[in-house]
Order: sequence, then C-alpha cells, then structure tokens
Amino acid sequence: MPQINRCAPRFDKLNRTGIIYTPRGYRTLCSQIKPEATPRKATAVDPSIKSANLKRLHRIEGQVRGLERMVADDRYCPDIMIQISSVQEALRAVGRALMRNHLRHCATEAIQRGTPAQAEAMYDELMNLIYTHAR
Amino acid sequence: MPQINRCAPRFDKLNRTGIIYTPRGYRTLCSQIKPEATPRKATAVDPSIKSANLKRLHRIEGQVRGLERMVADDRYCPDIMIQISSVQEALRAVGRALMRNHLRHCATEAIQRGTPAQAEAMYDELMNLIYTHAR
Amino acid sequence: MPQINRCAPRFDKLNRTGIIYTPRGYRTLCSQIKPEATPRKATAVDPSIKSANLKRLHRIEGQVRGLERMVADDRYCPDIMIQISSVQEALRAVGRALMRNHLRHCATEAIQRGTPAQAEAMYDELMNLIYTHAR
Amino acid sequence: MPQINRCAPRFDKLNRTGIIYTPRGYRTLCSQIKPEATPRKATAVDPSIKSANLKRLHRIEGQVRGLERMVADDRYCPDIMIQISSVQEALRAVGRALMRNHLRHCATEAIQRGTPAQAEAMYDELMNLIYTHAR
Repeated sequence: MPQINRCAPRFDKLNRTGIIYTPRGYRTLCSQIKPEATPRKATAVDPSIKSANLKRLHRIEGQVRGLERMVADDRYCPDIMIQISSVQEALRAVGRALMRNHLRHCATEAIQRGTPAQAEAMYDELMNLIYTHAR
Repeated sequence: MPQINRCAPRFDKLNRTGIIYTPRGYRTLCSQIKPEATPRKATAVDPSIKSANLKRLHRIEGQVRGLERMVADDRYCPDIMIQISSVQEALRAVGRALMRNHLRHCATEAIQRGTPAQAEAMYDELMNLIYTHAR
Repeated sequence: MPQINRCAPRFDKLNRTGIIYTPRGYRTLCSQIKPEATPRKATAVDPSIKSANLKRLHRIEGQVRGLERMVADDRYCPDIMIQISSVQEALRAVGRALMRNHLRHCATEAIQRGTPAQAEAMYDELMNLIYTHAR
Repeated sequence: MPQINRCAPRFDKLNRTGIIYTPRGYRTLCSQIKPEATPRKATAVDPSIKSANLKRLHRIEGQVRGLERMVADDRYCPDIMIQISSVQEALRAVGRALMRNHLRHCATEAIQRGTPAQAEAMYDELMNLIYTHAR
C-alpha cells in the first residue's frame, strides 16, 4: 500500500473528536487537518487510476466542445442527447475509479485505524456518495 | 412555432416508407433526407433553449477542466466525485432542454403529420431516448 | 387502434381550457372529466400490454414476499440487495410498457387533436414522467 | 457491536484463500462456509434496521397489489407510473438500510480482519453493489 502522507478528507463528525492518543503517541487521522484552510487531499491515489482518469477527462473535455458545436449547429436533438449520454458514461467511469480508490485507501484507513465514531462518519460519507453522487 | 426548414432525424423505419403524398402535394417528412450524407438537423430549436444550452455547455467545459486539475492535484476523492456529480447534473439539464424541444417540434411533427408507421417509429425513438439516454 | 372511450388524464393546464368545439360538435378531451371525482382512466390500453403487466406485477408481488422472508431470515445483505435490484428492474419493465402505451394513445391524442396549450400540457406531463418517475 | 455469530457472504475470491490462522487460533471468516449448501447469512443485522425493513416490505407488498388493481382497472398510465415510482423509492430505502448495515458489519469485518486479498474482494463486491444494484 502506498505511503500515507497527505490526508484531509471530509470527516465532519471526526472533526469533533479531535486528536487521538494511542499507545505510540498521538497520530493525526484524516480529520485533524483544518478542512477549509487547504483543499483536502487523497490519502493515496493509485498511479494507474490517476493517469487513466486524466486521460478520460481530457477526452471528455473534447467531447463537451463537440457538444457545443452540435448545439450551435442545430443538430438533431436525439443525436445530441445520445452524445450527452456518452459523456455521462465517461464521467461515471471516472467516478467509479475514484470510488474504488477511495474504498481502498481513505475508507480502509478510517475503518481499520479510526475510532468507532470515525468509522461511522466514514459510513455516512460513503452512503452519501453512493446514493447521492454515484449515479 | 418556428418555420420548419431543416429536418433530418433518425427515422430508421420512416426511411422505408418513402415520400408522403398529401392533398397539397407531397411534402418531405424528417425522414426523406439521406441520414448519412449530412448530419441530421433539428426540425426547429427554440432560440431560448439554444442559447441556454450553449451557456451551460461552456460552463461545463470549464468544470471539466477543473476536474482535471483536481485529479492532477490528488484532491480528496469524494470531493472530486461531488464535483463530477454536479457536472452530470448540468449535462442532464442540457438533455432535458433538448428533450423538451424534441417533443415540441420533431416528435409533434411526426405524430401530427406522419403515417401511423412514422408515429410508431417516433415512439420507438422516444422510448430509446427515455430509457437509455435520458438519465 | 382501440376505440377511445374512457379518458381522464392529469391535464392540470388543460382543465383551464374547458370544452373544445370542433366541426363535428364538441368533444371532451381527456381533461374535461373532473379529476378528483373519479380516478382517471387510460385513453386506451393495448390488451397485450395490460395482460403482460398484470403477469409481471403478480410475479413482483411474489418477489416482494420473498424479500420479506430474506430479511426475516437475516440473509446476507448483498444477496437481498441483488434481489431488490431485480424487483426494481421488473417494475421498470411495467413502467416502460405503460410509457409506450401512454405515448401511443393519450399523448398522441393530445398532440393530434388538442389545442397548442393542451399539447404543451402534455409535454409538461411527459417531461415530469421522464425525468422524475421513469427511472 | 452485535456478536458475530452467523456469516456466509459472497466472497468468491476469499474462498480460495482458505482458513486464516491468527495468534488466537484460527478463525473462520465469512468465506469459509460453503456458499451453496446454505443460504448466506448477514454477519449481523441491527434490530432497528431489520424491523424497519420488514415494515417497509409489508407496505410495499400492499402497494404492488394496488398496482395490480390499477392496471386491471385501466387507470391512467401516468398515475400508475407515479405509483410505481413510489414503490421503487420505497424499495430503494430498504436497499439503503441494507447497504448501511453491510458497510457497518460485514464490510468492516472483512476490511479490519481480512487479508489484503479479502479486503480487495470486499471492494469488488461493494463496487458491484454500488454501480449495478444500488439504484
């Protein structure tokens, strides 16, 4: 597993729990870094996921420009809709890769080493991602 | 209703039915223009829908570039996923506007003036759009 | 096409437009029957769609009872979830068949014979069905 | 957390890994019970989730019977579709509760105490649930 060196996830509940003291001294969990000061970073990103996602997003950017041309050109609405649906599918692939990375790294980190409250906050976050954002 | 001057939709079944003779002489329906030669055009596009969609797509293009930066920067996966979900929602708004325009113009055209076979082909196309592409 | 003998859809906007006079005397459109007094009926239902849907719903009822047993029995959550997803798919099939019937009959009726305002109300209804209910 | 006494999830990959020896003697993970012989059980089910789900499913069963009556009665298609959509929403609520229970118990179990291969199998299972079944 990659070294965990950057970490600042959205643990709203975790933030209330503060610093955690463990037998080996205290360790900061994902939550202790002030969330607003710096944008939160991933615990770890598999390099293959990152490069595949960058490639996908670059292609998506081009597809969106294509959509603009289709609309400007009064193309047949269903043809544009089918193209939109293909962009959405491509974005879904990016999201899936991020979800897998998230499960493998930050979620696992919270579930393995966090307190029960921290694990519970991670479940909340996952439920929100799954049912609100992972379409 | 805007003048119907351009028209070349995906009427696979319609293409087989050929030219339609009416009391006022024959008129070409959406189907008669060879589909592969030229990209198919919308029967009509409401100007307000078109300009709103162009604006939306321009904003979406910027959002996708933002996603690329977030991925390049190893941002916290759920934060990127929430951003993806917002792009998906914006694309859905473009699709909705196109669907409404399509119902109002080309679908109505086919249902009002087409043969039963042409109307049936339009239902097929709508069903495909609704259940496969209109997410 | 089946005879159109019963008809009382949700045309909120249509209700404001009142009775329509045509060359052959006035005819009631779907909208004129008071919506709350009697449950609204379909303009027409293709018999094959009706019997297929009744069969599907009967099977779905049994599947839901199966789900109750699985939950009562503390079955493995993902196994229940996969079963739920199969019920959802079966319900979607019922909805699809209804959507096709609706397009073919009541929507077509409104688009072919209604006033522009009635057609517009039908587009509104379709948009609502497509984007809110046809998942 | 409830006592973990029953456990037989779908760990296709886990089954290959066999029994796990730990400092306290060997313990069976979810995977060791033959999956086909007996239906797999949940690691643990929160009693409140179970009773809420049974209540929901009982209500859903009644709703499905109501759908059968609506179809038998040729009710207005969009009215039936809206009712279907409400049943689907209710099923989704059951699925959500199961997903939360699954994350909290069996997934956590696999991630906390499983081998890396077992954790990976759990991520696969979660990804499949999230993107194929948790609609």
